[in-house]
Amino acid sequence: MHVTSEQRLDDGVLEREFTLGEVPGILWTPASASVSAPAPLILLGHPPLGLRRMYPRLVARARQCAADGFAAATIELPGSGERPRRPAAEQARADLRRVMETGEPVSDEIVDALILPLVDKAAPEWQAVLDALLSRPEIGGPVGYSGGVISLGVRLAVVEPRISAAVLFAGSFVPRAVVEEARQVTIPLHVLLQWDDEGNDRQAALDLFDAFGSPEKSLHAHMGGHTGVPRFAGDAAARFFTRHLK
Amino acid sequence: MHVTSEQRLDDGVLEREFTLGEVPGILWTPASASVSAPAPLILLGHPPLGLRRMYPRLVARARQCAADGFAAATIELPGSGERPRRPAAEQARADLRRVMETGEPVSDEIVDALILPLVDKAAPEWQAVLDALLSRPEIGGPVGYSGGVISLGVRLAVVEPRISAAVLFAGSFVPRAVVEEARQVTIPLHVLLQWDDEGNDRQAALDLFDAFGSPEKSLHAHMGGHTGVPRFAGDAAARFFTRHLK
Repeated sequence: MHVTSEQRLDDGVLEREFTLGEVPGILWTPASASVSAPAPLILLGHPPLGLRRMYPRLVARARQCAADGFAAATIELPGSGERPRRPAAEQARADLRRVMETGEPVSDEIVDALILPLVDKAAPEWQAVLDALLSRPEIGGPVGYSGGVISLGVRLAVVEPRISAAVLFAGSFVPRAVVEEARQVTIPLHVLLQWDDEGNDRQAALDLFDAFGSPEKSLHAHMGGHTGVPRFAGDAAARFFTRHLK
Repeated sequence: MHVTSEQRLDDGVLEREFTLGEVPGILWTPASASVSAPAPLILLGHPPLGLRRMYPRLVARARQCAADGFAAATIELPGSGERPRRPAAEQARADLRRVMETGEPVSDEIVDALILPLVDKAAPEWQAVLDALLSRPEIGGPVGYSGGVISLGVRLAVVEPRISAAVLFAGSFVPRAVVEEARQVTIPLHVLLQWDDEGNDRQAALDLFDAFGSPEKSLHAHMGGHTGVPRFAGDAAARFFTRHLK
């Protein structure tokens, strides 16, 4: 893990950009984090739109985490930002756009092509970053995962035992295989759903929620479209992490 | 409104039993409530099992309200507790029991017979109690309604403009007419749903949530059966009232 830049934000949060191999990322630690008081960590998921474009929302979430005593970190997804494009993924995105413009239903094949290779490549990268981050003395467990591509959250919740709670956002397409995978998830979940999300199939989101194997899972549906999650919903998600990671 | 008994609970909450005409009820006010600082009020709904039987849960909710600075009040539902039985309602309950024991689906007719007359009779009683309570100097607006028979909550939200926010519990049968009535509701709503509620039709609850006309409504689904609402869900409902009534 190679730190490429470092700055102190006005609220005392230390922001460090880094690379791990070919993967760029950002780590935020609260001013209070130290060797004697390592901060628990929240991994910040995000849609595959590139870290630069997502930065304003990510840093706002990271500041909220820091205010609650958590470190936060994120990495660029495969094929996004300055990472090399993946031709198959570009093709799947083009197929999706074309289908959505015509108003046709999005087929399972398109969803699979769009999501499954992304998850297969991204999950080990997030695990590798977790190795690197947890080896730092100012960062400790337990670890939470928050938001982003929900299928990646499902995969990480299944394969990564160090993640002990997750806030998931039912706001992207979900392959059928991921619904099956969800039955293996057992960690506490706090699932957000935007009831009128134009790009999201509400019934599919409810089916995914139903499939999760976790004894403690809760669904929080709010009005509005994809980016309209109300402020109080963010506060409730923060309290979920405080309940489970502290 | 005639106060029939009065006691101070150990946390300073003043509990007064009262009658208004033939309807018995209970009023709880926080120690802080006074003429110069009247407390906003939360009406505590409950299932038609009688105030005596429901008392332990009601007083726990009232104490939580008082801790948050709210007065709380409830009244006996028609046909419950020591109020005269209503033969048609008894018949509807017997029909429901019989159908549920055989595992048959509960017909719309049974649901209508069970719920609609109850709501028609109860709603004006709750409004009359609201008149009486709001005329007391230590109680002020705004008013919230919490829990209980969800169809009564819907009716009160439509007909009673002094109620400005409601926590509803999707845990009882809902007549089709009430789903239509729900479209007229415009106040902020916080709806609780127990995902595995054995006595509740999950899809009907989701349809009712979808029908509400309120621009701000949120659905909070948790694991477990009818009485298994987790502690943190109660805390979140309390924060909803604090956001909207203070």
